Amino acid sequence: MSFLDEVPWNGDGLIAAVAQDAKSGRVLTVAWMNREALKETSERGEAVYWSRSRRKLWRKGEESGHVQKVREVRLDCDADAILLKVEQVGGIACHTGRESCFFRKLEDGRWVTTDPVLKDPSLIYTK
Amino acid sequence: MSFLDEVPWNGDGLIAAVAQDAKSGRVLTVAWMNREALKETSERGEAVYWSRSRRKLWRKGEESGHVQKVREVRLDCDADAILLKVEQVGGIACHTGRESCFFRKLEDGRWVTTDPVLKDPSLIYTK
Repeated sequence: MSFLDEVPWNGDGLIAAVAQDAKSGRVLTVAWMNREALKETSERGEAVYWSRSRRKLWRKGEESGHVQKVREVRLDCDADAILLKVEQVGGIACHTGRESCFFRKLEDGRWVTTDPVLKDPSLIYTK
Repeated sequence: MSFLDEVPWNGDGLIAAVAQDAKSGRVLTVAWMNREALKETSERGEAVYWSRSRRKLWRKGEESGHVQKVREVRLDCDADAILLKVEQVGGIACHTGRESCFFRKLEDGRWVTTDPVLKDPSLIYTK
């Protein structure tokens, strides 16, 4: 039996995937994987997700160059979430040009942006 | 407008929530929140989730005592995931008695349990 068979894919055939920077411990992104994405992630050693909006495999970094090199793949107790520990190429995980997608913090009942843009997205996505 | 209105709750009225230990950086759990759970989390300063299996609010630690004291609440770029930085009371987040729910690691195509049980679950859930 493959490790892929132990994942109880949800009704859409997906599992939530958290990417964490292996060195800093910062949580970078939450995305989704289908069976093919998890298989390819394990084979390539680079994060591959399923884009729900584009309905296709999303090889993280394919446009931005901000590849996530996978150091560890973990599964949670009820097997409904994956944790990737990654080396984030370029130090930027977010399409907004920030290190992490979690750049907003709840302060006094408001979402406040706390993180700087490290690189202008127009310089990241030049296609 | 409330910060709750800025969350595009999914078709089931939920958002994914990642809990991370504020000190060690370890990712502890991935769970789900509905509007009421996020509201109560922000008001109580303790993690409250929505249990999809039991279909009710799940005040983390209500049975186990393993409350998650919330130090930070973050929202990701497309607002479909919440990150909680927490102080994990008892040092145990998982119902199996382990620190983290992510106690299995992919090694050579198999999920291998890497983390010890810190406390026998029968001693945690005594009701």
